[in-house]
Amino acid sequence: MSRPRAVARIIELLSRLPGIGEKNATRLAHRLFEWPQEELDDFAKALKELRRTVTKCQVCFNLSETPVCHICSDPARDASTICVVEVPQEVETIERAGVYKGRYHVLWGLLTPSGAKGSSENTMGALAKRIEEGKPKDLILALSLDPEGEATARYIAEMLAGTGVKVTRIGFGLPAAAKIEYADAVTIAHAFESKKEYS
Amino acid sequence: MSRPRAVARIIELLSRLPGIGEKNATRLAHRLFEWPQEELDDFAKALKELRRTVTKCQVCFNLSETPVCHICSDPARDASTICVVEVPQEVETIERAGVYKGRYHVLWGLLTPSGAKGSSENTMGALAKRIEEGKPKDLILALSLDPEGEATARYIAEMLAGTGVKVTRIGFGLPAAAKIEYADAVTIAHAFESKKEYS
Repeated sequence: MSRPRAVARIIELLSRLPGIGEKNATRLAHRLFEWPQEELDDFAKALKELRRTVTKCQVCFNLSETPVCHICSDPARDASTICVVEVPQEVETIERAGVYKGRYHVLWGLLTPSGAKGSSENTMGALAKRIEEGKPKDLILALSLDPEGEATARYIAEMLAGTGVKVTRIGFGLPAAAKIEYADAVTIAHAFESKKEYS
Repeated sequence: MSRPRAVARIIELLSRLPGIGEKNATRLAHRLFEWPQEELDDFAKALKELRRTVTKCQVCFNLSETPVCHICSDPARDASTICVVEVPQEVETIERAGVYKGRYHVLWGLLTPSGAKGSSENTMGALAKRIEEGKPKDLILALSLDPEGEATARYIAEMLAGTGVKVTRIGFGLPAAAKIEYADAVTIAHAFESKKEYS
């Protein structure tokens, strides 16, 4: 078999993305071959610029084009409330619901239920430091109801026990296995309204 | 909502690919953000080069880095037999089975069952010309058992009626709704062994 080199490389790279197997990557690569050159150039440019123009906010670790993101640098957002999420797309989902006026913390990963107290890749350590220095009043856990979400919620609640920070968890009207990022705006709004103290 | 520009552009472009919705594209874009810069550059380079280094073979329309592909230019391949497929990945699937020693013709699309006799995008016209000029002995239809595959098989069989070209269709041991490109090598081998005259 002798696949053209550029096709083979695109298939190989696409296959590294979650949920894209080699056969699916092959279909996608052949579809890309049918795109006009200017769109391929545009895609290439965005990929090259991705890490050069986008960074993680120094405060909340959301994706940002500036060292501090537009939410953390907005004086109208309540700095005494932090909503903890797993990944940046959950910030987008919650912002779309328009009911939350505090700030965020993006963990970039959850803890495992086996008791692992954290990983070098998540931002749990930065969250602990941020709470210690910023002394927020409220911390809202917007974490999934799966074992990893539970383990992470438990870990954060224990970490903050005795600090006076009120820890709540968003209410779930959604099925227990649902991922937050796929929830619709109304469900998210309900979940924020029904948040309960987490202990 | 203020997504970084490069992220927004990648999400928009990925969403144009078949089977990738906006939410899935968002997950993929965030995952790409975690790739090392050199892999993003490599991906960008392959995309820019795709249409500049890859072309459709002048004879069979398979993807190729040379004007005539490695199969069409291989004197060991039987030029008197042409296997007709819908898309290039089906050539790969059949080659992997290792049972076929003839040449190919990639249609880049099927006819619709409504009776449309072809489209400006598929290579049916080129196939007709190729058969007229090359006078092959055998034409093997490796087309799916769906309505489009049926319509295309029927069209080609009618086009070749009276020309003396023997038209066969690969045998199907696989479920009728299965796409050829997902078949395993053994099934493909069986299908080639059990090919029957198509009339």
